[in-house]
Amino acid sequence: MNASLPVDSARLAGELEELAQFSEAAPPAVTRVLFSEADLAARAWLRARYEEAGLVVRVDPVGNVFARWEGTDPSLAPVATGSHIDAIPNAGRFDGTVGVLGALEAVRALRAAGFQPRRPIEIIQFTAEEPTRFGLGCLGSRLLAGTLAAEQAALLRDPEGRGLEDLRAAAGCTGDLAAVRLPAGACAGFVELHIEQGPILEREGLAIGAVEKIAAPSSARARLIGEGGHAGAVLMPQRHDAGLAAAEIALAVERAARGGGSADAVGTVGVFRVAPGAINSVPHTAWIEIDQRDTNPATLAQARGEVHRAAEEICARRGVQLEWEVINADEPASSAPELVDTVREAARALGLREMPMVSRAYHDTLFMARVCPVTMIFIPCRNGWSHRPDEFAAPSAVAAGVATLAETLRRLAG
Amino acid sequence: MNASLPVDSARLAGELEELAQFSEAAPPAVTRVLFSEADLAARAWLRARYEEAGLVVRVDPVGNVFARWEGTDPSLAPVATGSHIDAIPNAGRFDGTVGVLGALEAVRALRAAGFQPRRPIEIIQFTAEEPTRFGLGCLGSRLLAGTLAAEQAALLRDPEGRGLEDLRAAAGCTGDLAAVRLPAGACAGFVELHIEQGPILEREGLAIGAVEKIAAPSSARARLIGEGGHAGAVLMPQRHDAGLAAAEIALAVERAARGGGSADAVGTVGVFRVAPGAINSVPHTAWIEIDQRDTNPATLAQARGEVHRAAEEICARRGVQLEWEVINADEPASSAPELVDTVREAARALGLREMPMVSRAYHDTLFMARVCPVTMIFIPCRNGWSHRPDEFAAPSAVAAGVATLAETLRRLAG
Repeated sequence: MNASLPVDSARLAGELEELAQFSEAAPPAVTRVLFSEADLAARAWLRARYEEAGLVVRVDPVGNVFARWEGTDPSLAPVATGSHIDAIPNAGRFDGTVGVLGALEAVRALRAAGFQPRRPIEIIQFTAEEPTRFGLGCLGSRLLAGTLAAEQAALLRDPEGRGLEDLRAAAGCTGDLAAVRLPAGACAGFVELHIEQGPILEREGLAIGAVEKIAAPSSARARLIGEGGHAGAVLMPQRHDAGLAAAEIALAVERAARGGGSADAVGTVGVFRVAPGAINSVPHTAWIEIDQRDTNPATLAQARGEVHRAAEEICARRGVQLEWEVINADEPASSAPELVDTVREAARALGLREMPMVSRAYHDTLFMARVCPVTMIFIPCRNGWSHRPDEFAAPSAVAAGVATLAETLRRLAG
Repeated sequence: MNASLPVDSARLAGELEELAQFSEAAPPAVTRVLFSEADLAARAWLRARYEEAGLVVRVDPVGNVFARWEGTDPSLAPVATGSHIDAIPNAGRFDGTVGVLGALEAVRALRAAGFQPRRPIEIIQFTAEEPTRFGLGCLGSRLLAGTLAAEQAALLRDPEGRGLEDLRAAAGCTGDLAAVRLPAGACAGFVELHIEQGPILEREGLAIGAVEKIAAPSSARARLIGEGGHAGAVLMPQRHDAGLAAAEIALAVERAARGGGSADAVGTVGVFRVAPGAINSVPHTAWIEIDQRDTNPATLAQARGEVHRAAEEICARRGVQLEWEVINADEPASSAPELVDTVREAARALGLREMPMVSRAYHDTLFMARVCPVTMIFIPCRNGWSHRPDEFAAPSAVAAGVATLAETLRRLAG
């Protein structure tokens, strides 16, 4: 790799490790739910890092953090980069965090190399990319892009019934949620550095993926209300078991993804709960959450319809009441070709092997695409694993991504 | 009903209501897990009630409570009655409690009627009839009967990893678990009053069921270890989804119960959990608990085998590791014919309509049958509902059961 950018890969690896300590789970697992104690402590620690690096920090009403390196022409729209630091239960240390601490390291490397940006450079640390707390991913970037209305966001409640309004107030995030939305022209471009969360770069032996497209994700939540009773006393013909209806729907989600004719189609039931949850009780209620994705909007729509119809049939047959809520059904996003080219050229200038690729995972970039031209920089991660404690990206792989990001920012802000 | 026994049905209804206040769930639901704060408070309150009634209280090392009314011949083995006060999550107010507070009311009624027992009468309040904490039902009565060895019991841990040894010590239950076992001849007989938890008595318009047989229950616990990953990035052919394997097994449990040719066969998956439990994560691990029962030991054994084989096939096909643990596979119990007759004659003497019946639910009596002659007195409950907050037995129905119990105790201890 070209050494003109002094990326300190050891410092960055140390900071990733330090950030991983802010967790509700025991190491090596990381759990960091929006506005939890761990999240608030991580936010404070990161703010100190931004300020140490000479960046000016602003926090918006939903907790998105903007760390700004002023340009020589402050009137120009900034070039933005960043990602998220929240982590689903028992996740790893690299998802999101590489794009936040990597952006900080890119800024430090550019500064150390004597670079002075003409456009401002902003690191955005997005609130709640993960859907853990409210069942809705990309909360911060949805509000920035205006695809989620402030009034809708204000109604969000977590499973314990705590609302976003109370939680953000307790976290010290004040002001009207409507003020989160970025005005037109607020950014000149946005580039997110992220682990691939898939096996392609590792398999191909490449350092960098320049993301051309982000797959269309969609998700739904179902509550199934059957009838409970004692597991010994209620005979089989009298049962309306909500857990069994949920089990059948989960299998229908798999069938729709496998049978729809699209190799990129995936379908997952990642949340599956039953109540009362006792071995000797027929489940009276079940909750499932369904995630379906595809790069092809047509086969995705078909799979979504198939699952919903199957759920209705299953519940009708079992005498179980179905409450179906579409959480989101977002359109896919495309990157700006000129930004993809800039990333590819930056990588090649650093002597790194790269390829254009598709992101099947969901990122804040999907929503930033409504605000300004975007792309993403992917780096390989071990076995493509993500959302698990053994998620891993080698320090050298992270450093290659940071160097590519820094070189890209230099070209965009210079 | 014959008025010779002054059962105070209003006092008893009030005490059932008062006991229901000791709960971890909001009314009308009751949750009372062994050695929880609610359970300890309920135990203290009950102890005061026993002592008020002039009974001598002893607590054994596992927390079984014995409240004794001394007989004129203290050398005779006591006649015992009783039930449990623990309640599964979001259960009702009558399961178990009717047999404890009802026994107390029976004793008070007998005393008020001027009865003086020749044999001692003991109320036994059994520890953890419900399997909520340790996944194993009838903990107290298994130890009393010696069907669970003290060394095995000492190894029990709850889902949070807390062991029985620590929990009972914290609850003030001291002494060696091996001392719980009742010696041969410790009781002359045992009669448990309980709600039916099924619809038969209500449908037939009868006040009393005299239980001749308790169905053979069996249960198992499975841990399924697949492979996690990001719901967007791991394509379908690469998946080893533990939640889907669990869903298939749950449906196999239903199939085995419905297809085995026994009208009394039931099969339930009441516990179904997945981890990490996030909408955008493929479940890497799932836990299910399986309850299978039948009055016919042969068809039960067949259904158990069928489910275990199905689980092995499903997990092999999906590349998911299966850990299978048999929790219990108990033999059915039969009542002593002379005790069944005593209950039926007592009911008829009180002018109550009765019938002999089978218990498909699981009770401490199943294990007391290894200690002494047993039977149970069933009373109707609304719609046969149990293990749910709207479980209900009318005060008059409870009073009829208490009067029958009191009359039975008078005949056995007199």
